[in-house]
Amino acid sequence: MEDLIIIGAGPAGLTAAIYAARFRLKLRVFEKFSCGGQILLSPSIENYPGFPEGISTFDLMERFKAQAQGLGVEIEIRDVLECAQIKGGYCLKTDAGDFETKTVIIASGASPKKLGVKGEEEFIGKGVSYCGTCDGPLFKDKEIIVVGGGDRALEDALYLANYANRVSLLHRRSEFRASRILVDKAKNNAKINFILDSVLEEVFGERSVNGVLVKNVKTQEKAKISCAGVFIFVGIMPNTGFIRGFVELDQGGFVNIDQKMQSSREGVFACGDCAQKSLYQVVSACGEGAGAADSAHKYLLNK
Amino acid sequence: MEDLIIIGAGPAGLTAAIYAARFRLKLRVFEKFSCGGQILLSPSIENYPGFPEGISTFDLMERFKAQAQGLGVEIEIRDVLECAQIKGGYCLKTDAGDFETKTVIIASGASPKKLGVKGEEEFIGKGVSYCGTCDGPLFKDKEIIVVGGGDRALEDALYLANYANRVSLLHRRSEFRASRILVDKAKNNAKINFILDSVLEEVFGERSVNGVLVKNVKTQEKAKISCAGVFIFVGIMPNTGFIRGFVELDQGGFVNIDQKMQSSREGVFACGDCAQKSLYQVVSACGEGAGAADSAHKYLLNK
Repeated sequence: MEDLIIIGAGPAGLTAAIYAARFRLKLRVFEKFSCGGQILLSPSIENYPGFPEGISTFDLMERFKAQAQGLGVEIEIRDVLECAQIKGGYCLKTDAGDFETKTVIIASGASPKKLGVKGEEEFIGKGVSYCGTCDGPLFKDKEIIVVGGGDRALEDALYLANYANRVSLLHRRSEFRASRILVDKAKNNAKINFILDSVLEEVFGERSVNGVLVKNVKTQEKAKISCAGVFIFVGIMPNTGFIRGFVELDQGGFVNIDQKMQSSREGVFACGDCAQKSLYQVVSACGEGAGAADSAHKYLLNK
Repeated sequence: MEDLIIIGAGPAGLTAAIYAARFRLKLRVFEKFSCGGQILLSPSIENYPGFPEGISTFDLMERFKAQAQGLGVEIEIRDVLECAQIKGGYCLKTDAGDFETKTVIIASGASPKKLGVKGEEEFIGKGVSYCGTCDGPLFKDKEIIVVGGGDRALEDALYLANYANRVSLLHRRSEFRASRILVDKAKNNAKINFILDSVLEEVFGERSVNGVLVKNVKTQEKAKISCAGVFIFVGIMPNTGFIRGFVELDQGGFVNIDQKMQSSREGVFACGDCAQKSLYQVVSACGEGAGAADSAHKYLLNK
């Protein structure tokens, strides 16, 4: 039986792994796809403390991974399908067998939320995208729409303006949730224009996107805008389907945790984007990852 | 009137400054001595995610400082003597005048409780340490003394036994404040021996520590013990004297905060080692600093 299994190898899971490895716990780290998590959907990060010039998210995650691996942590590609309580701990059912462990850290992250409008699903990979880093270069000298008003939307709009001919930032309000510095940068970028108080109603095209239908929520007026790409940044959905019924989730599906990162179940902790909290940032996820590992360690010492 | 004044420029305060500057808040940062805080008591840090080879704490703090300064933050050396509520915010009395602000982030840190024995001060960073997690790996296969009888001392003794050849746990009583199970585990660890009813009288060495003088408080006998490291865990003292009566503190003097880092006073937040919490680590302080800045920003937006 392991001391600890960490589910997920994004910033939260890798920080938990670094701490747990330093506590010398007998641990495994399971990752569904590949190291790094959601942050890799953004090209670079400027607000992780320690990198004054900013750093590419790929490089930052490589550094996290190297740090964990340097402590002997191995990241195994396994999909956890279900968790169950057993005597003395928990059993994780994966796509490659069952694993028993005394404690669990859930760091399974989140995925971009879809708008659910007509044409969105149909044109994924054909103009509709949730990842500026991945798809930006495909839209060189084209026109694109970015939907959203948070940090993520503004960051990606600025990045996409390096490729696109024109970026229209579509936001349902006139005020932004995003950091002011990003809004200012966008306003000063000649390639970016703002379409405020407006929502996306439809994505249309033939083989690929060639436009969107937009509605102004104040005037109710609708307008068609031609574009080749639609980037959607309207929030996140926690990856917690596999633990529904195992630990308490909030209405949005985020894991309820206390100040020590413990879920509703003793010895099961959560951190990062899958957890209920007020700030979804890399550095917050890291702080929580350290906290979760520390709590798991203390739990084991007192068991 | 400022939007925000941050008191303290350690990891928590500097991260709060980076975030607040990106929110484009009108802010000032006051630091009593010099940037960096308590972490500078350790020569290097291996568990801050992003630096797989470890980094000197000085370099890490220089990077934090550069990042904040790159966003236009200026760190002013000022000692805050007192805080008071005024109309629309708070007034901070400093050794160089009064400053008015709508919100405050208290990131004034803590100081390790020192024993006050001969040689202790002299050998800080040269064998005397107040942080097992940070410095343990530096003592691989060496002999060390751990001073203290609480959870922290026992947890760290167990942790340090992963590295050291021998850990002598020096405690002034024969009973421990620490959880029984931790004491049992330490007793069952072949690398840990107990020196009970004993106090540290002196730390000695040349360039670095090579031994301690210990006195048994029952027999009054003194003995020299050779060792390379002395870890002192007799508590930390939050630097919160100047806000006593202004915000609620717990019994140990730490600022009581909620999950959004707010103190008992609206618009006054706290983060890092001066705040009441379960894990005192750089990355935790950073996560909290980001959280405090985010909460201050949201508070100002809704004011």
